[in-house]
Amino acid sequence: MVAGAANAQWAPPYLLYLGNARDDLAAKTARGLAYWRPQWCVGQLRGSQCRTSVGLTDMDARQARLAGANTMIVGVANAGGVMDEETVRAVVAALDAGLNVASGLHQRLASHPAIVAAAQRNDRHLYDARNPPPLQVGHGQRRAGKRLLTVGTDCSVGKMYASLAFEKELRARGLAADFRATGQTGIFIAGGGVPIDAVIADFISGAAEWISPAREDGGWDIIEGQGSLFHPSYAGVSLGLLHGAQADALLLCHEPTRQHMRGLPHYPVPHLRTCLEANLAAARLTSPGVLAIGVALNTSGMDRDEAQRACESIENQLDLPCQDPVTMGMDRIADRLQSCFAG
Amino acid sequence: MVAGAANAQWAPPYLLYLGNARDDLAAKTARGLAYWRPQWCVGQLRGSQCRTSVGLTDMDARQARLAGANTMIVGVANAGGVMDEETVRAVVAALDAGLNVASGLHQRLASHPAIVAAAQRNDRHLYDARNPPPLQVGHGQRRAGKRLLTVGTDCSVGKMYASLAFEKELRARGLAADFRATGQTGIFIAGGGVPIDAVIADFISGAAEWISPAREDGGWDIIEGQGSLFHPSYAGVSLGLLHGAQADALLLCHEPTRQHMRGLPHYPVPHLRTCLEANLAAARLTSPGVLAIGVALNTSGMDRDEAQRACESIENQLDLPCQDPVTMGMDRIADRLQSCFAG
Repeated sequence: MVAGAANAQWAPPYLLYLGNARDDLAAKTARGLAYWRPQWCVGQLRGSQCRTSVGLTDMDARQARLAGANTMIVGVANAGGVMDEETVRAVVAALDAGLNVASGLHQRLASHPAIVAAAQRNDRHLYDARNPPPLQVGHGQRRAGKRLLTVGTDCSVGKMYASLAFEKELRARGLAADFRATGQTGIFIAGGGVPIDAVIADFISGAAEWISPAREDGGWDIIEGQGSLFHPSYAGVSLGLLHGAQADALLLCHEPTRQHMRGLPHYPVPHLRTCLEANLAAARLTSPGVLAIGVALNTSGMDRDEAQRACESIENQLDLPCQDPVTMGMDRIADRLQSCFAG
Repeated sequence: MVAGAANAQWAPPYLLYLGNARDDLAAKTARGLAYWRPQWCVGQLRGSQCRTSVGLTDMDARQARLAGANTMIVGVANAGGVMDEETVRAVVAALDAGLNVASGLHQRLASHPAIVAAAQRNDRHLYDARNPPPLQVGHGQRRAGKRLLTVGTDCSVGKMYASLAFEKELRARGLAADFRATGQTGIFIAGGGVPIDAVIADFISGAAEWISPAREDGGWDIIEGQGSLFHPSYAGVSLGLLHGAQADALLLCHEPTRQHMRGLPHYPVPHLRTCLEANLAAARLTSPGVLAIGVALNTSGMDRDEAQRACESIENQLDLPCQDPVTMGMDRIADRLQSCFAG
């Protein structure tokens, strides 16, 4: 269990609210929690029109409370991030059943009068994962500890999954390692973090410094990357994160079937080497000795042989271990990390 | 006159409020307005402890109103950007005298009950230059028109002055050219713009697209740069601006006596060539044909001969025209722009 989550006012166990999610993507926050923190999830609550499931027992808020749930997570992304009436009713019912409620939607729970009233009358806590904590601007001063940052050729190529899988692999080896979340889903999984794309622009690198403070125990902070230096909409977030992270190691994440940059058909995906070199060059500003330690390949769109060949081809290109964190594990990448940072 | 300013609810003429500014830097917004838009400034209002002046006639709000002023600009930066009691009293008095009030401080005018009440009872307008307009995320699609962006080796090296001087030079040549503001002082000078360091991180490049929409008249948008790709605190803002600007031309700004990056004694100023190449490489993502057209050197810390030698040395290094926009004009840089973009 992550200390942050245990201490939070919206601590697990969780009921995952899927609402009327039309597909897996719409329920990706719930899916991430069910996959990475199954021990925290007592059930799912689905609307009548819901077309997906994360494989948990269906229950309502009252049943979940009886089963030990402490918090309902609104784990669904509506179009525009606005709560529909059914969602508002479900949130109010959860509060009335004695649950806290946490949400990563753009529209804040705290902005809805009926929800605020229900929280007050039940003395329950509301948590909006898109509200950053108070931050300072980045100072850029070298801090103690070892940090790995996942960087990507594009948005949504598996940086969060790769980060969590790497945390798991290092922990399995007896090393101290902590996932540091920079997005809504990651924050629910970690029990804390900063939604870095929601901070004021001046504070991006300061936010990255905040989530990964100096550590003296010899362990690793595994920082969840965001966006891509090559995505014209979001590269500023990626660069500020890269500078604030002061990463000792970069793990490049890539989805090989991607036809173009996410949401931008007129932008090609960068070459892996170009992307990696640009990230290393930018990272050196605050972390001169930064090293690339591997490639995490999201091969979910490929069959097994194809995936294996894709990894081998990238290994030959970049002379770095390449694995799919979900289907192949991360042992060879962790081996390289340990050999690069031995002693 | 810039259309934006004429149409704004906080239009000139201006009374410039200097409060108890201790030095020139504390009054830099007022100074920028008095220097670049003297025709808009009817007077200055100084507190009893003020240790600087922008050379205008001293007057109070009532006198300024009689002299034709429409808006008082809070042109002073207090420590922390918070209004002290004297500032609040001066703002209320300005509203009671019939002036609108605009401010670039962190603490919003609209957050202060006494100021809001005074604005309401006098039916006057409050404008906080740190409130961005509603924005979209950047789309990265190539848009019509020609754009120049000033980029810098560091923060506060003269990007705004260089941008405004270049606007003036192009206009003197009969070309259409418009300064596009991205900071508080620039916004008051332009009469509009986006405080790009105050937008939510996801919207940086979208903000840059917003301030410089497609233009079809053959003229130039001269976009005020912010920060530096080599400043560990703010590079994310610089990169998002670079991508959103889709600049056809970059003008590199530099202050040659700078000992280290602003506020960061442990970070050296980058080499000019390194800095320029990094900016060009990043700019090519959204503007593949981008060209460097010159260097604007802030030689305010040097004598004339020294300044001349510094420019010559940079010209030889980079094979680009180099001038101090304030003391030397920008004719040779404008010549190069016109020859690069002829026809």
